[in-house]
Amino acid sequence: MKLTDIDTPAALIDEAHMAANIARLQERLSAQGVRLRPHVKTSKCIEVARRQQQAGARGITVSTLKEAEQFFAAGFSDILYAVCISPEKLDRALALRRRGCALTILVDSVAAAQAVVAKGQSERHAFEVMIEIDSDGHRSGVQPEDPGLIAIGKLLHEGGAVVKGVLTHAGSSYELDTPEALRKLAEQERALCVRAAERLRAAGVPCPEVSVGSTPTALSAQNLTGVTEVRAGVYVFFDLVMANVGVCTPDDVALSVLTTVIGHQPEKGWAIVDAGWMAMSRDRGTQRQKTDYGYGAVCDADGRLIDGLLVSGANQEHGIVSRRDGQGDASIVQRFPIGTRLRILPNHACATGAQFPSYRLVTPAGASREWPRFQGW
Amino acid sequence: MKLTDIDTPAALIDEAHMAANIARLQERLSAQGVRLRPHVKTSKCIEVARRQQQAGARGITVSTLKEAEQFFAAGFSDILYAVCISPEKLDRALALRRRGCALTILVDSVAAAQAVVAKGQSERHAFEVMIEIDSDGHRSGVQPEDPGLIAIGKLLHEGGAVVKGVLTHAGSSYELDTPEALRKLAEQERALCVRAAERLRAAGVPCPEVSVGSTPTALSAQNLTGVTEVRAGVYVFFDLVMANVGVCTPDDVALSVLTTVIGHQPEKGWAIVDAGWMAMSRDRGTQRQKTDYGYGAVCDADGRLIDGLLVSGANQEHGIVSRRDGQGDASIVQRFPIGTRLRILPNHACATGAQFPSYRLVTPAGASREWPRFQGW
Repeated sequence: MKLTDIDTPAALIDEAHMAANIARLQERLSAQGVRLRPHVKTSKCIEVARRQQQAGARGITVSTLKEAEQFFAAGFSDILYAVCISPEKLDRALALRRRGCALTILVDSVAAAQAVVAKGQSERHAFEVMIEIDSDGHRSGVQPEDPGLIAIGKLLHEGGAVVKGVLTHAGSSYELDTPEALRKLAEQERALCVRAAERLRAAGVPCPEVSVGSTPTALSAQNLTGVTEVRAGVYVFFDLVMANVGVCTPDDVALSVLTTVIGHQPEKGWAIVDAGWMAMSRDRGTQRQKTDYGYGAVCDADGRLIDGLLVSGANQEHGIVSRRDGQGDASIVQRFPIGTRLRILPNHACATGAQFPSYRLVTPAGASREWPRFQGW
Repeated sequence: MKLTDIDTPAALIDEAHMAANIARLQERLSAQGVRLRPHVKTSKCIEVARRQQQAGARGITVSTLKEAEQFFAAGFSDILYAVCISPEKLDRALALRRRGCALTILVDSVAAAQAVVAKGQSERHAFEVMIEIDSDGHRSGVQPEDPGLIAIGKLLHEGGAVVKGVLTHAGSSYELDTPEALRKLAEQERALCVRAAERLRAAGVPCPEVSVGSTPTALSAQNLTGVTEVRAGVYVFFDLVMANVGVCTPDDVALSVLTTVIGHQPEKGWAIVDAGWMAMSRDRGTQRQKTDYGYGAVCDADGRLIDGLLVSGANQEHGIVSRRDGQGDASIVQRFPIGTRLRILPNHACATGAQFPSYRLVTPAGASREWPRFQGW
């Protein structure tokens, strides 16, 4: 199938770029002696996760119970649900475990730990649980020196749950953009999570696993002593936010949106394309970074970046392609006549992918298979 | 079904609010003697569009050919595809028309009109076509005084297509926030579109229809002389952007996201909920308006606004609920313990709805039916 035969907008995966991205992190972590547990929330696609497993990944990370159910149905059984569970979701988690899924759940509070213990006791089931550690103040987790950490660990352990370990995610890494700052945060992420594990062990709570990660820190950590596994999601595709953070280049980005020129505003130097925010998502993650790409960077149909162009505005099904410098472009109609195919690189691969029911895998020979992805909770 | 039995996050439609919103615009336009052709891109839901038709709407507007196909399959036949068509989409449009769908397509350039004529002649088919007029410079369309307008009209008319009329969308109305400015833009939208129709008619091109609209201008227009139909989409649900524009209040918003508290950061006064940007969308449309609602305004489980709270931050599956004034809230854990249900009003109903595979209809008796919506192109 040729690219010109695909209805637009469409989400394309460049197979060679994806393979290189998968290999890069896998080889790095294998050399450091730790396991990689990819976060499949980025792709929500069985086929993509299979490529990650084939390259050496061990287990997967999910952000919803629907992901856990879908991936378990496709043969993945070692699954970490890395969002703190609310009590009413325990029945659904338990149902998965009783069907044979090695699902690990997460808590960061005494209240949630109590709910897990109560459900485990009433159902005579030993949940496997990790405790979320706050290593950078950006979101969830208990601080490693917080007395609550030991309280949670003891409550779980003495209440009959299996404490698998501690987990942290230094999500503030997305706000950095120098190798030095990234290395420093990666070390902070490691050190604070290891410290939490040591405190639990000293208090008599088993804590075999120490799980850290975010794409920027996973690609920056120099020392992973005490860490047993690393989690990362967006590395599989990369995106323009990651290019600004400095852990890839725009040429590494494996996900793009194929679009068609549907009109022009010649006086303004605009080409109008059929990829609006419904296709690109409303993610403007590069807005406050070094380079603001608007709603995406513009490539030709073969994926080669066209210097100086971006998607400067977006309505639901309209994107405005114009010059980054805000100047008009008198040749826009001639350069990109109606019907021209372009590819747009996304700010944030997780958000853009979520707008599509499937991906098209692209090889040098053209577009091949359609890989479904799923939506919802 | 009780709200507490619904897995979160979930998209809720408050049936009474939706009915009031539908009635409000329908009654206004009926009194003005023009038809309402709702834009179903907002809901992408057959059941919602049926409620609009039952209230008196005539035909529907769509933003993609998939919407046209899905709504035609559900019994809607008078469909306006209100995005300029690119040549390679003509086969798909033709297939719909040959199956009996009264599909009208849109062009705003000589190049697209030529493609429509060429396809019509080679297929011996008379497409029904509208010409998009630019009435406010915000996106697409040909200006009413542009000589190209007459060239497009004559090309279509003499080439065997049926020129149904002219269409404009004053999308810049989203940037206004006073009744005076909205009334003025509504009059500009009307006057320029009517002017384009008059120029076409004077040049011998039939132009029976004059179609205008956006939710803010549809609810503001004082004079619709010469207009035959009005299009609007988001009025069916409303949202916080529309509240800032001034055409509704937050209490009118019919769409909300049901969410559950999954954790806290007590020192910061944060409650963490399971509605992140995957549920709310990344739309930050209120960012530059009078009131910035972050990722949404917070209500209790019954939909009553909780003054002073908003979703101040969002990751993929985490939302941070905190005080608008940035102050901590020492009582956050007690006020909203883990497991508490909340509802979040969206910035932009079209974007938030698109994150969900279905809606839950909520009546005073609780949650009732699940209404599917579709995704993709």
